[in-house]
Amino acid sequence: MTTIRSEARLQESLADVTRLLDKHRLLESLTHRQEGPRKDLLESLQHRQNLAELQRRLRTMHPADLAYVLEALPLDDRRTVWEQLDADLAGKVFVEISGPVRASLVETVSEEHLVAVLMRLDPEDLSYVSDSLPSEIAERVSRALEAAGRPVIEEPQYDEDCVGHYMTREWIAVPETYTMQDALAELRARGELPPQTDRIFVVDARHILRGGVPLHTLLLAAPDTPVSATVSEDTISFSPHQDATDAAKAFERYDLVSAPVVDERGKLVGRLTVDTVMDLLRNESSLRALQHAGLSRDEDLFAAPLDSARNRWPWLAINLVTAFIASRVIGQFEGAIRELAALAALMPIVASIGGNTGNQTMALVIRALAVDRLQLVGGARRLVNKELAVSLLNGSVWGLIVGTAAFVLYGSVALGAVMSGAVVLNLVVAGIAGVAIPLSLHATGRDPAQGASVLLTFITDAMGFFLFLGLATLFLL
Amino acid sequence: MTTIRSEARLQESLADVTRLLDKHRLLESLTHRQEGPRKDLLESLQHRQNLAELQRRLRTMHPADLAYVLEALPLDDRRTVWEQLDADLAGKVFVEISGPVRASLVETVSEEHLVAVLMRLDPEDLSYVSDSLPSEIAERVSRALEAAGRPVIEEPQYDEDCVGHYMTREWIAVPETYTMQDALAELRARGELPPQTDRIFVVDARHILRGGVPLHTLLLAAPDTPVSATVSEDTISFSPHQDATDAAKAFERYDLVSAPVVDERGKLVGRLTVDTVMDLLRNESSLRALQHAGLSRDEDLFAAPLDSARNRWPWLAINLVTAFIASRVIGQFEGAIRELAALAALMPIVASIGGNTGNQTMALVIRALAVDRLQLVGGARRLVNKELAVSLLNGSVWGLIVGTAAFVLYGSVALGAVMSGAVVLNLVVAGIAGVAIPLSLHATGRDPAQGASVLLTFITDAMGFFLFLGLATLFLL
Repeated sequence: MTTIRSEARLQESLADVTRLLDKHRLLESLTHRQEGPRKDLLESLQHRQNLAELQRRLRTMHPADLAYVLEALPLDDRRTVWEQLDADLAGKVFVEISGPVRASLVETVSEEHLVAVLMRLDPEDLSYVSDSLPSEIAERVSRALEAAGRPVIEEPQYDEDCVGHYMTREWIAVPETYTMQDALAELRARGELPPQTDRIFVVDARHILRGGVPLHTLLLAAPDTPVSATVSEDTISFSPHQDATDAAKAFERYDLVSAPVVDERGKLVGRLTVDTVMDLLRNESSLRALQHAGLSRDEDLFAAPLDSARNRWPWLAINLVTAFIASRVIGQFEGAIRELAALAALMPIVASIGGNTGNQTMALVIRALAVDRLQLVGGARRLVNKELAVSLLNGSVWGLIVGTAAFVLYGSVALGAVMSGAVVLNLVVAGIAGVAIPLSLHATGRDPAQGASVLLTFITDAMGFFLFLGLATLFLL
Repeated sequence: MTTIRSEARLQESLADVTRLLDKHRLLESLTHRQEGPRKDLLESLQHRQNLAELQRRLRTMHPADLAYVLEALPLDDRRTVWEQLDADLAGKVFVEISGPVRASLVETVSEEHLVAVLMRLDPEDLSYVSDSLPSEIAERVSRALEAAGRPVIEEPQYDEDCVGHYMTREWIAVPETYTMQDALAELRARGELPPQTDRIFVVDARHILRGGVPLHTLLLAAPDTPVSATVSEDTISFSPHQDATDAAKAFERYDLVSAPVVDERGKLVGRLTVDTVMDLLRNESSLRALQHAGLSRDEDLFAAPLDSARNRWPWLAINLVTAFIASRVIGQFEGAIRELAALAALMPIVASIGGNTGNQTMALVIRALAVDRLQLVGGARRLVNKELAVSLLNGSVWGLIVGTAAFVLYGSVALGAVMSGAVVLNLVVAGIAGVAIPLSLHATGRDPAQGASVLLTFITDAMGFFLFLGLATLFLL
């Protein structure tokens, strides 16, 4: 065995593949340019040798690594690599790659090849990728599968946020009447275990789950022990309709590797595994980061500019509306600004510091909601009180600093005092909004992370302008 | 066996515990208020019964669930619950809870009790929590352990971002000369396997790792097969000095449950398990979200306001400096604003739309960096070109809309045209900054997510003001 340093291996693979692709592009451009028949022959020989080397290199790679390489490559190189993969390997890679890149492949590769690849997938993988497929391709594959006597693509039965969507139908279950020896004999007869099997399941005659027996119990227990005697008491099971994120949290909390999924009668219908849960958590956290920045979905880095631009429009539209409303708040004070132009220069500071503290508070509340720390009655009240205290404290400290700076810049004590007052008040607004917005979104069943930031910034901007310009009108003019 | 719905179970536990705590507080307040000796007796009996019930309830709970309950409770209730736990259970809970809550417990509970709890921890867990302990407590525990003839708290050997910090020292390794039967006999002699054991390791006489044998191979292979014959070819191993995040990515990519950690000579020195990797990924993603909002670290929701306020100061200070600089940009155009106060009302819109598109671009680039999609030479150039195209496209569309709105509001075609031009130019600035900032931070070895947003908003604000007010001065006045 050679131990493998995974990141180094990956970088090496990527470097090899890009080198061969560079050569491929060079040879291709030469072939197109030159016309002489002899040169042509020589170059096309080189060309084929190069492609064969690329094929050999790709065949040695893990499907997950190939997926990684495909994600890193621009569109034309992606197609070249994809065309060198045999259908089996291409199928595995197709399942591993991310949604947007899968969509880019569907658009660029030939339909025949794609159908041939899809035919190799098992029904579960096929149903998993079927969302990314245009309906005509899905139909072609269905028809071809039917002709070959295999089950057609199943419609996904469960919503994307349910446990059922993520569970596998591969598991090992033995009757509760078995002994350890019987169970071992059954395992040996199968020859191989499904991936991520850390326990087998025990079911009764009606296929109702009795519990799980960890593999190490199978290894260590006496052969004539009945499996029912070793079934672990507190096997955690999930319902296929349960929220997948809740199940993922349970995996984290109880350090699970696999867990049974049972229907409402307790019948075993699936198995959830830790690798799926990790993918789910990763996707959720990255989607949240993207949504936080106002993107509707993940984007292929090398997508067409128009597609990319469209992905960003809904957010920009909302933001423009709020920015215009905040602008109208300023518009009401144009007289004051004409008299004292310093107000125009200072007002973004009041808005900005409010937005910042509000977003800090909100990040903490969203985090607390995500790990269910705010379930208690009275917890929210306590939190508001604490955040108000923090706002007043921060307001006094930073209000004084900001006010002093304004006084130094413009030499007016009154302007400094108005600035200080506006900062204190806007920080209180920010503190309240920072707690109230995510809690209200959560209470109405929405994701508190989505849209919360734009709403908060709107409130702290508009109120910041209003408080500062309003106080200035009252006390300075 | 009863199958358990984990979230429901957790909510039930929390409800039970809060009910008992509410009763506890009520009884406590009564005991303090009333003075009569008979009532006192009755109530103190009730009080003790209530605490006993709480203790019983807590004892039935999983340490991870107890940790969850502690996190959700305010400080005084936390202490009450903590005091009802026996030292063994308290130790397990102490390891499970998050850093800030651990720190709050250290501050509130009695030192004697804490030392007693810490004495029950194994050296690995003790070293894990020792960062959260004040030095005098760590020393007391060390002295007590020494007196009891047990190893003292080890100084952590590895940095917090290294694989070594996360690996466990519990694993099973057998000599390469063993047969399957020998290995099974060794496992049976141990009686129990360390958690998350999906494979045992095979080492040579010098304790150099030869590879791993999955448990299912142990189950399925013939008893007289030598373990060396079944060692899996591509066991992925890590170095203790390797970046833990890279190792976590490999766990995700190759669906690992456990993996060996070997030193530079190939000797087995530890084992990394999927539960630790999940915790690591979860902590990273939540820390990133908090840092993105400008918090230095996670905060206990019920922390003292002054501690909370301080956690938010570094960011606010930086932000104030940038806001003041942007304000000085406006200050240069006070003459223009006095002449045309509409400029003051419209300028935040130009800044805001720039900040938004810039943050969208940046979120995509940060995501691409996180999943290593931007490793290719030329990838960054391609990306800049694409983002510039998106910016120009978005600029034309939104610039026209914004310009039209400005014309409608103020009835001046020239003002509308200046507004459009400023939006287009600021979106181009935002696109370039959105790609350049995270790439430069990444190139200098820094985390691209941290501080990127404040820098970007500074650039788009200052440039937005400058471009709009500058164009207005040139063409309108």
